[in-house]
Amino acid sequence: MQSVPIDDRGLLLGDGLFETILSQAGRLDAFEAHVSRLGRGCEALGLPAPAAGDLRAAARGALAQAGLTDARAAVRLTWTAGSGGRGLERPAAPAPRLIASAAAAPAPAARARLVTASIRRNPTSPLSRLKTLSYLDNVMARREAVRAGADEALMLNLAGELACAAAANLFWIAGGRLFTPALACGVLDGIMRARILTAAARLGVEAVEIRSGPDVLADAEAVFLTNSLIGLRAVSALDARAFGPHPLVERLAAAAS
Amino acid sequence: MQSVPIDDRGLLLGDGLFETILSQAGRLDAFEAHVSRLGRGCEALGLPAPAAGDLRAAARGALAQAGLTDARAAVRLTWTAGSGGRGLERPAAPAPRLIASAAAAPAPAARARLVTASIRRNPTSPLSRLKTLSYLDNVMARREAVRAGADEALMLNLAGELACAAAANLFWIAGGRLFTPALACGVLDGIMRARILTAAARLGVEAVEIRSGPDVLADAEAVFLTNSLIGLRAVSALDARAFGPHPLVERLAAAAS
Repeated sequence: MQSVPIDDRGLLLGDGLFETILSQAGRLDAFEAHVSRLGRGCEALGLPAPAAGDLRAAARGALAQAGLTDARAAVRLTWTAGSGGRGLERPAAPAPRLIASAAAAPAPAARARLVTASIRRNPTSPLSRLKTLSYLDNVMARREAVRAGADEALMLNLAGELACAAAANLFWIAGGRLFTPALACGVLDGIMRARILTAAARLGVEAVEIRSGPDVLADAEAVFLTNSLIGLRAVSALDARAFGPHPLVERLAAAAS
Repeated sequence: MQSVPIDDRGLLLGDGLFETILSQAGRLDAFEAHVSRLGRGCEALGLPAPAAGDLRAAARGALAQAGLTDARAAVRLTWTAGSGGRGLERPAAPAPRLIASAAAAPAPAARARLVTASIRRNPTSPLSRLKTLSYLDNVMARREAVRAGADEALMLNLAGELACAAAANLFWIAGGRLFTPALACGVLDGIMRARILTAAARLGVEAVEIRSGPDVLADAEAVFLTNSLIGLRAVSALDARAFGPHPLVERLAAAAS
C-alpha cells in the first residue's frame, strides 16, 4: 500500500481536504463538481489547488490498482497541505500531496435511523463547511449514534439550528414543499444536495433553504439524507419519531439519479 | 523518513491524538503527565491507550535517530486510530498506530503579539479540550494571526468567553491575582498550565479559573501564554492594547521551571 511520510501536515494536524466520488464502470460521477468544490476548499484554507487532470489521473490509477475500473466504486481523493512548516505554521510555499484510493461502493442501505448528536457544528469554523482532514467531530458524532443503536447522527449547530448528518446532508418534506438547512448553518455544500435542489425545481416542487431549530420537523412528512456515495437515503426514525415512505422522496431520487 | 499507510485514520479523518514533549539532555519533561493526558484523551475518544513504556521507547528512539538525545528537543508522539473501518466508523477493534519524531526545540521567543481570531472554540466538541489530529481550526486561527502581523491567535469560545491561544494556554494578572480561563470554556488541559497554577499556590498568589468575556482583560496588568515547549511566554500586545513586563510573570516563570 502507498504511504505518506510522517511529517505530512494532513497526518499531523488534519491540514488538508478530501473528496469522495462515486465511480460507475469507470465514469467518475459529477467529477467537475468535486474538482470545483476541492478548489473552493483550497481557497478557503489558503492552499494551492490541484489540477483537474492530476485528480482524474490519480482517481483512474487508484481504480485500476484496486481492480475496480469496471465496478461501482468509491474513489477517495485526499489533498494534504504537504510536508514541512514549523508547528502550526505552514512553509512559505506549501507543496500539497495528492493521495488516491478506491474501494467497493457501499451497498444500498436500508432506511436510516437517526439520533441527535451532542456534538454541535461550529459555523465560525471552516471545518463546518468543508470536507477537511480534521473530521473527528463527524467520527465522534457517528460513534455516538451507533452506540445509541442508530445508523447516523443528526447534527445541530451551536445556535441549535438543524445542520446535517455526520456524513450526509439533511432534507425533509412538509406541506408538499422540500426543506434543507441553509449552508450558513454550518453545512457541507453537498454535491448531491445541489442535485436534489435542481431536481426539485425541475419537478415543480418548491425548495426552501432554511435556518430553523428541530421543532420545525414536527410538520415533516418525510426525512431523507443525501451524499455522493449513497445518493438519497430515506430516514425511518429520528430520535423517538418514526417516518414512513413518501412518494415525493421516490420522485426526487429518480429525478436526481 | 518513516511513513504511514494511506488507510490510516489519522491521515484520512484526523482520528487520533498527539503530545509534544520537551526533552532536555535526554530527560523527557513531565513525561508521566503527558502519558496521563494521552490516556484521558483515548478514553474520551474510545481508543485503546498506549503503554507508557512504548511511548518512552518511541520518544528515545526518535531522539536518537535525529541525533538530539543530548540536545534541547521537541518530541512529538502521535497516536492514530490505526487503519481500517468503513468510512467514519472504526473497525470493531481499533489497532492504533504510534509515530514518534524529534526536532530541535524552538528557541526562546520574544514577547508575543496576539490578535483575536474569528474562529471560535466549540465546547460541545472534544476537539476543544484534546490535542487531536483534527487541529485545523488551530492552524487557521494561527494563520489569521500571522497574516494580521501578529505571532499568535487569541481564541474565544462560541459564547464569547476567553479560551486560549492556538497553541498555548492563556493567563493574566490583575490586582495581584492570577487568572486563566476554566477548562470548561473549551481549553486544552495544558501541562504547563497546571504547573503555573501549582507555582502560584506555592508563591501564595491567588489563582482563579474563570469564565469571562474578553472585557475582563481591561483590568489586566500583564498577559502571558504557556505550553510545554515554550514554557512561559509574555504577551506584549493583544489587538490594540499593549502590555509591559510584570515582576509576577518573572516569578511564576522561575517557580514553574
